[in-house]
Amino acid sequence: MKIDDNFYMKLAIDEAWKYQLLTYPNPAVGCVIVKDGKLLAIEAHKEAGMPHAEINALKAAYLKVNPNSVVKTKSSSSDIHEFFLKNHNDFFNDCDIYVTLEPCNHIGKTPSCANLLKELKPKRVIISVKDPNKTAAGGLETLKNANIDVSVGILEEEGLNLLLPFISWQNKSCIFFKMAQTLNGSIDGKISGNRALAYVHTLRDKIDLLVIGGNSVRVDKPTLDARYIAGRAPDVFIYSKNKIFDNNIPLFRIPNRNVIISDDLFKLLDYKFVMIEGVYTLLDKLKERIDFLILIVNSKIKNGQNALNDIDINFEILHENYIGEDKIMFLKRK
Amino acid sequence: MKIDDNFYMKLAIDEAWKYQLLTYPNPAVGCVIVKDGKLLAIEAHKEAGMPHAEINALKAAYLKVNPNSVVKTKSSSSDIHEFFLKNHNDFFNDCDIYVTLEPCNHIGKTPSCANLLKELKPKRVIISVKDPNKTAAGGLETLKNANIDVSVGILEEEGLNLLLPFISWQNKSCIFFKMAQTLNGSIDGKISGNRALAYVHTLRDKIDLLVIGGNSVRVDKPTLDARYIAGRAPDVFIYSKNKIFDNNIPLFRIPNRNVIISDDLFKLLDYKFVMIEGVYTLLDKLKERIDFLILIVNSKIKNGQNALNDIDINFEILHENYIGEDKIMFLKRK
Ligand SMILES: [Zn+2]
Ligand SMILES: [Zn+2]
Repeated sequence: MKIDDNFYMKLAIDEAWKYQLLTYPNPAVGCVIVKDGKLLAIEAHKEAGMPHAEINALKAAYLKVNPNSVVKTKSSSSDIHEFFLKNHNDFFNDCDIYVTLEPCNHIGKTPSCANLLKELKPKRVIISVKDPNKTAAGGLETLKNANIDVSVGILEEEGLNLLLPFISWQNKSCIFFKMAQTLNGSIDGKISGNRALAYVHTLRDKIDLLVIGGNSVRVDKPTLDARYIAGRAPDVFIYSKNKIFDNNIPLFRIPNRNVIISDDLFKLLDYKFVMIEGVYTLLDKLKERIDFLILIVNSKIKNGQNALNDIDINFEILHENYIGEDKIMFLKRK
Repeated sequence: MKIDDNFYMKLAIDEAWKYQLLTYPNPAVGCVIVKDGKLLAIEAHKEAGMPHAEINALKAAYLKVNPNSVVKTKSSSSDIHEFFLKNHNDFFNDCDIYVTLEPCNHIGKTPSCANLLKELKPKRVIISVKDPNKTAAGGLETLKNANIDVSVGILEEEGLNLLLPFISWQNKSCIFFKMAQTLNGSIDGKISGNRALAYVHTLRDKIDLLVIGGNSVRVDKPTLDARYIAGRAPDVFIYSKNKIFDNNIPLFRIPNRNVIISDDLFKLLDYKFVMIEGVYTLLDKLKERIDFLILIVNSKIKNGQNALNDIDINFEILHENYIGEDKIMFLKRK
């Protein structure tokens, strides 16, 4: 196997996928640091408000060589920035820094990564994708103006796939469909393991709106909160022509939750980050509008109803993560 | 992400999986070389008679630093062994060598890897699994007796999963089931892409026996050869109570092929490496006897018959490889 720029960029991309969607409204970004040929750090941005991928990687790389450095105790982005501005001691001058996205150039919740890198003067910065976000772009020029060797476009297609939700957030609503099934497509009974269920609750904690079909609400009487991770319960959109529901169904009992009952799917566009859960009859209806599909596949073959037997859609597998006995497939329509 | 022994061993294991089954009757083995912290090689054993994983990795690592070395022109295992015995110049003294399986100690088609490593004196040899094959074992002692630092048991469970077919070959027949489906479990019509079909032909070229149901033979009239890769056509076992078949069905026309028509599955145990193709009614019958299942999943949702709707089996995903628009899932019964 070739150990080249593509290899290291792939490590950065795979690491970023572990936090895909969880960084909302920020993009999922990964960063790898190689110092004089030695792989020192593979890190990612994990959540909005927390350090960017580059900052996590700079810290991890520095600690790999200086395990007792005081930077170990710094966790906020500004503290880590400040530490490196003062104490880098040219540590990064022989480093290749791989980032899946052009380093940010604006000062938002954290100082700009491009401005920090400019001061640290790494040997090379290797970027997969130029930032499509006008506010943050310009990092490339900042680095080039500081005479840092910059390469752009390494594994660009994979880098763009990683950015798919972010680009949707930027342009319009990001609407994705989530469903769970066994290996053979059965959807009967309890399908997913507990870790996958906790993952779904993590998603619910992040999204702005959860869409579910009226029939599922009537039959399953769900709560649709994020209790497994003690998270925030999202607003709920019940897709139904019949507007009458038993008010004792738990989902209606969640404080501070808006519930919309409507058959006008156009209203979804008022929300930036929308998950449609398991309403497979909706998949056919919405297949032109969804940005991607998350299929949670449990590794068993089980008899039961096959939900998707009447639909034809071609997908591209963007990525898969493994969570316990399940895997999370990110699928894009072809 | 932690960059430690587990990380490098995982790279070796993943590389070996790319050649899983194709090394028959040898085990799938991967090897990674890290010289003074620099990742130099990620290689695997690719086919019986070709160099072992360690030899491929030694060559790749040396060439990474000395790209014009004459070892570039050596391809046979003995030539590479000979080159390094004479010309290593202590190159490997500061190397950590990760191998998924204890280096071989016997002189078979190639000289022993343990004996070569003993001469090269790497800093450390890190091994996932001790060799379960008595003939080849002893490499660990050879290395230890040469005062090389050896660690065993790194990612042992993953290392053992990788060896599953090999351990079956050693103990008895290795019988696996292969089927193709879409994401939602549909098996109607053409399912797999061309690269996945070529992969199936590669498997056919390696196995000793291909099992297929009588009904499939009557309906599909298959050839069951390995023409996409110009490979060897395996012997065929048609599982059928009714022994009468139209002799014009192409599979009967392949020269030098034995065809067995029988309903006695016990006969499978006469063969060492057996693939059962797509006869899903046989899966339920043979599920206690198969060592693993290869599920080739095409990334589309398609309406059609779901083959596995009457079966209940729990699996563990051992590994997945991506081949074009399909993925190859290796599944073990739980
Ligand atoms: Zn940044
Ligand atoms: Zn060997």
